[in-house]
Amino acid sequence: MAVSRKISEFMEQGSWIRKMFEDGIVLKQQFGEENVFDLSLGNPVMEPPQEFFDALSDIAKEPIKGMHRYMPNAGLETTRAAVAQELCSETGLDFDTEDILMTVGAGGALNVIMKTLLDPDDEVVIFSPYFVEYFFYADNHGAKCSVVPCDDRFIPDLKVLASLITPKTRMVLTSSPNNPSGIVYDSQLLSTIGEVIKSKEQEYGSEIFLVSDEPYRKILFDGMEYPHIYRFHPRSIVATSHSKDLALPGERIGFIAVNPNCDDKNELVDGLTFCNRTLGFVNAPALMQHLVARLQSVTIDVSKYQAQRDFLYDALTAIGYNVVKPGGAFYMFPKAPIENDVVFVDELRKHKVLVVPGSGFGMQGYFRVSYCVTDATLAGAIDGFRDAFDTFT
Amino acid sequence: MAVSRKISEFMEQGSWIRKMFEDGIVLKQQFGEENVFDLSLGNPVMEPPQEFFDALSDIAKEPIKGMHRYMPNAGLETTRAAVAQELCSETGLDFDTEDILMTVGAGGALNVIMKTLLDPDDEVVIFSPYFVEYFFYADNHGAKCSVVPCDDRFIPDLKVLASLITPKTRMVLTSSPNNPSGIVYDSQLLSTIGEVIKSKEQEYGSEIFLVSDEPYRKILFDGMEYPHIYRFHPRSIVATSHSKDLALPGERIGFIAVNPNCDDKNELVDGLTFCNRTLGFVNAPALMQHLVARLQSVTIDVSKYQAQRDFLYDALTAIGYNVVKPGGAFYMFPKAPIENDVVFVDELRKHKVLVVPGSGFGMQGYFRVSYCVTDATLAGAIDGFRDAFDTFT
Repeated sequence: MAVSRKISEFMEQGSWIRKMFEDGIVLKQQFGEENVFDLSLGNPVMEPPQEFFDALSDIAKEPIKGMHRYMPNAGLETTRAAVAQELCSETGLDFDTEDILMTVGAGGALNVIMKTLLDPDDEVVIFSPYFVEYFFYADNHGAKCSVVPCDDRFIPDLKVLASLITPKTRMVLTSSPNNPSGIVYDSQLLSTIGEVIKSKEQEYGSEIFLVSDEPYRKILFDGMEYPHIYRFHPRSIVATSHSKDLALPGERIGFIAVNPNCDDKNELVDGLTFCNRTLGFVNAPALMQHLVARLQSVTIDVSKYQAQRDFLYDALTAIGYNVVKPGGAFYMFPKAPIENDVVFVDELRKHKVLVVPGSGFGMQGYFRVSYCVTDATLAGAIDGFRDAFDTFT
Repeated sequence: MAVSRKISEFMEQGSWIRKMFEDGIVLKQQFGEENVFDLSLGNPVMEPPQEFFDALSDIAKEPIKGMHRYMPNAGLETTRAAVAQELCSETGLDFDTEDILMTVGAGGALNVIMKTLLDPDDEVVIFSPYFVEYFFYADNHGAKCSVVPCDDRFIPDLKVLASLITPKTRMVLTSSPNNPSGIVYDSQLLSTIGEVIKSKEQEYGSEIFLVSDEPYRKILFDGMEYPHIYRFHPRSIVATSHSKDLALPGERIGFIAVNPNCDDKNELVDGLTFCNRTLGFVNAPALMQHLVARLQSVTIDVSKYQAQRDFLYDALTAIGYNVVKPGGAFYMFPKAPIENDVVFVDELRKHKVLVVPGSGFGMQGYFRVSYCVTDATLAGAIDGFRDAFDTFT
């Protein structure tokens, strides 16, 4: 067998998502790209902001000497300083260059954090609905995930959180704005999560880290302000990227920010730097580090996503779907009109609308719509959403 | 404790290398950058070829629509096709787009390969002297390394190879041109390695992969032709990057090439693609994929490195050092005049010459000189090499 037993099993488990993806390709070939409404991937069609192209053009015209060389594994000093400065102004906390580590996207950041913190058999608590990669990431480092369930507004049940934290729990991993629900956890919720963790740490004499995966943190609607996690737990770490806020998902440029008030933060950052190297990332891509250093205060046009959210929310609720209105990101997570989300997603596909079943995010009976597409694709999907809904109601 | 027990132990083991690196920084601050001759890192001062800058300038002037978006995890079709085409012309084998996977450098490539192939407790055979990261990489995936020793020409003892291959051996990992020795394994040696593997596979009824880590494959001297590994074993896989041949180490752009004649290669590439995603790399950096697609037949000026090799080899042998003349890469691995390489490297440091002890590569009594520096740095180091040598002879 060409692949290990473990990877072979993983691939089999995930194979129906893959099958769907491949079906989508066939569908597009069969009916033409413009007749298939693919809302399955979080891969923005929006281009990066003009400031990005200007920065790229400047650096291409006047390359900086040695700009493609290795730099310290934590990243370029100037880039880390620029990120720290932006975080200072966003949070009011005293971030320093040394609190930042540049990474190969948020996926790279999460793996570096997990590798640094987790011993085999340690536990990671995550919240439903969740990004399915968390399971693979934790498994990469020999750890296990347990899942806090949520109510029908996608708000986690914090009593269950308390019961899921064991002496082996090393990390509690939040994601807000949430993929797939688009829900933004508010200050009160995050504060309670922090308190639960602290009380369990005291009970067990353990050290738990509150880790926030927040690539969508700048994509917020209705003038909402982002509740940064740092003030809710001293051992807090953020994993994020510029995949969404600068529309650079393919470039794999992100960072880790460690709470400036974290004890032992020097040891922690040394560990993160070591793992960034030994996991084979080595450092975040150099040219992108040079570019994003100039773009820390720049964000894509969020009002565009807000308008698309409003359009889709209005259209789906008008059809009769039960939808929680998202506060951020570019996903919506409607309830399917039948319990079996996989069957419903299959029905949508017959109407040439591609979405992802909620089962893939730990929530049967829902489906994820990614609306970071063109207006034409989004509008074109509405008939399919209506017809599929009518089939079952 | 902020980091896991495992990572804490690893960091302690490696801490004297770190100490050296930090001492180097202090030394430069104390005596001035130009008075310290840092030959410790494989971080070329050479800039990428003009063709790279032209390609960057072109794409900055006329950005390709969607060029920063996610693409399939294996990489851009056009880039994979360009790599395959170059490999066809280099090897005469029938490489196809599907045989190539773009990666976050060779370090990313090796981790993706190991994750795909290795179950916990599987074994990887490596050759001395070795790149120390191999141990960390194998450990990332729960596997162990065993080391084939070499003679004083750095040629591995293949009788020991046979004895080190056990029923748990899943991978034999070669690296040529070798880091740290600069030695190029010739066809006969590789052929014998292939035969030993095949005979052991037959003995155990196992499947072993011959993996070649070859980021220096295009940096060859004296008109040597590179002996590609594909013809020596059907289950052969190459991990490489453009870090050295295009002088882009900070950009993390590399690829995996699977032997087109490998059985089950579709399953293998699917596994590699899956692991590229789930290890958190997701895909190789997009912009660099666009650029290197145009640069497959371009290489930095190798004659420059050859001249530096000649200069350094002549200078060191004239002093009295015992040196095996390298056939490629930009490293030299002289014998220290005393047995304790760490003490000798410390003496060199007193003369403001920074190199890495052979112990870091599994060979006590040697040291690695990295000569991908300016001519001035290289020339400036010679007095220190002489004085340190004279201290002990």
